[in-house]
Amino acid sequence: MARALELARQGLYSTHPNPRVGCVIVRDGQIVGEGWHVRAGEPHAEVHALRQAGELARGATAYVTLEPCSHFGRTPPCAEALVQAGVARVVAAMQDPNPQVAGRGLERLRSVGIEVCSGVLEAEARELNVGFIKRMESGLPHVRVKLAMSLDGRTAMASGESQWITGPAARAAVQRLRARSSVVITGADTVLMDAARLTVRSDELGVSPEQAALALGRPPLRVLVDGRGRVPLSAPFFQAGPALVVTALDTPVDYVAAGHECLALPGEGEHVDLAALLRTLAGRGANEVLIEAGPRLAGAFAQQGLVDEFQIFMAGKFLGSSARPLLDWPLQRMAEVPELRIREIRAVGDDWRIIAVPA
Amino acid sequence: MARALELARQGLYSTHPNPRVGCVIVRDGQIVGEGWHVRAGEPHAEVHALRQAGELARGATAYVTLEPCSHFGRTPPCAEALVQAGVARVVAAMQDPNPQVAGRGLERLRSVGIEVCSGVLEAEARELNVGFIKRMESGLPHVRVKLAMSLDGRTAMASGESQWITGPAARAAVQRLRARSSVVITGADTVLMDAARLTVRSDELGVSPEQAALALGRPPLRVLVDGRGRVPLSAPFFQAGPALVVTALDTPVDYVAAGHECLALPGEGEHVDLAALLRTLAGRGANEVLIEAGPRLAGAFAQQGLVDEFQIFMAGKFLGSSARPLLDWPLQRMAEVPELRIREIRAVGDDWRIIAVPA
Repeated sequence: MARALELARQGLYSTHPNPRVGCVIVRDGQIVGEGWHVRAGEPHAEVHALRQAGELARGATAYVTLEPCSHFGRTPPCAEALVQAGVARVVAAMQDPNPQVAGRGLERLRSVGIEVCSGVLEAEARELNVGFIKRMESGLPHVRVKLAMSLDGRTAMASGESQWITGPAARAAVQRLRARSSVVITGADTVLMDAARLTVRSDELGVSPEQAALALGRPPLRVLVDGRGRVPLSAPFFQAGPALVVTALDTPVDYVAAGHECLALPGEGEHVDLAALLRTLAGRGANEVLIEAGPRLAGAFAQQGLVDEFQIFMAGKFLGSSARPLLDWPLQRMAEVPELRIREIRAVGDDWRIIAVPA
Repeated sequence: MARALELARQGLYSTHPNPRVGCVIVRDGQIVGEGWHVRAGEPHAEVHALRQAGELARGATAYVTLEPCSHFGRTPPCAEALVQAGVARVVAAMQDPNPQVAGRGLERLRSVGIEVCSGVLEAEARELNVGFIKRMESGLPHVRVKLAMSLDGRTAMASGESQWITGPAARAAVQRLRARSSVVITGADTVLMDAARLTVRSDELGVSPEQAALALGRPPLRVLVDGRGRVPLSAPFFQAGPALVVTALDTPVDYVAAGHECLALPGEGEHVDLAALLRTLAGRGANEVLIEAGPRLAGAFAQQGLVDEFQIFMAGKFLGSSARPLLDWPLQRMAEVPELRIREIRAVGDDWRIIAVPA
């Protein structure tokens, strides 16, 4: 299963909206077939592995990181393929959270006498498809907020000066976060002040050329939250390719001529309805959403309880007490203070990455 | 030598103003004597180890974490004791930075034909006596600033509400930092607002009863920096035992009747001359100084470049953008930003400890 998970991870940058899945077929203690899902619309992991195994699949054990599908999607059901190939035993890391599958794949296998077992390395398998699972279970994507701060929790000088708080290794890690996401969301402040483009750049990813090619073949949808439509089409963000603009105006602005899409999701005040935006994105198949925005927009997502994970890159500097806060989120009393669980802190080049989740 | 360092560490809470030193005597591959320096005025590590070894010291190798002393202090020179005992070889982790020794101990040993070697596990040995070395080399103590902050770099709500940002494991770690320090410095803000006492409490140290007894037997000098003499004698800080008050007034205030000491060290404005304070403390034998103060006083030490090490305890919470900063240190431009090297980040209970040093 560890090998199957390793294979599944090859699809980190390319399977969305589908889950990342790996499959290993073992016969008499030997691996006879391996496969992983590359891209939506293309064969699932099991199909690749069965093809490689050929006749050797008969009587073998198939290890899959996700329950084999039982429904006809863009490809025929994998449970059927495993039955046809005559495997004797299927070990799954987890049940498919997709309500169209949800145990039916494993049932189908059991019904023809195949020995079935589920739950092997389940935590690792769930982690790998955290966004797909969240979307299937709740109709919302997994929302990750990326922040870069100094040791004293500041993101930029009061003037806005902020470039290069963190070093190249942290920036490469951010590139990989972008590449694995279905959607990257930013705000007008960031696009206007930092001339941010939010693109995935293959030379900055720090992955193999094969992985980089897969990542660039399926880049994340770039979403700009711009309540009042302040960002001009001449901004580098728009020049970098087609994007989705979300405003709080009553009607969508026509960005279509310039190759962009616009959505009006008015919420309270002049602000975009962020929860509605996330539901809309999940409806379009977004598994993992990365928010790369300034303290105001990132703070708004956080205050509304819409964030599943904070990835904070911390640099060894003090920006000082007049510099900008991590999140615009004024709180008056300790009783209102949101608790987080710091899951991990790890060195990334000269900087450190903190992963924290709401407690 | 690793064993000798382990022994030396037993004196972490009790040797100051002396260095922590351990000694192991080995003959024919067997440890025949061990010792560590417990308290100033009492025998040095070598003497304990030689006593234990007795006649077996003749022809043996002595491992010492610091060059044996060559001068008569409160005890006779250890180099002499090693010569008298007839050891054949002395391995030292480092030379003594004390100008009264500075190689003369090793020279004395060499002069009578003892084989001498220095520099084994030197980095670890230096780390153990970072304060003693700094004081001997520069006339200043090693200055450590302890801070407790939220994930967003805040120390308290705007109202001052701040109790229990971090959990019991972090508080025990702070107790141990206090206990190992020669001096603990705090400010009027902290003493007035948090009713801080800055005492070492044996039940919160989280060490063995023997270590706790040693720590309580030689508690750090508690120093209050109170430029304008604002803190009343009724404050818990003063009730907790004798302290040193440092003001910026022209003449020392008479705290003597209440059992305290007062020092006037006027600096710029109505502020205490902090550099002069550190020099004075080093002159009194302070090796390690711990600063536990609010953003203003801690910020002043930091701004003046007087800090050797920041120990920041970080809790998994957001205190929000209107909460108090880590340090009162306004900076305008990235070019002014102080760079730090984050040496270590480690989990301490539910919190995390960051050790950062100026780059």
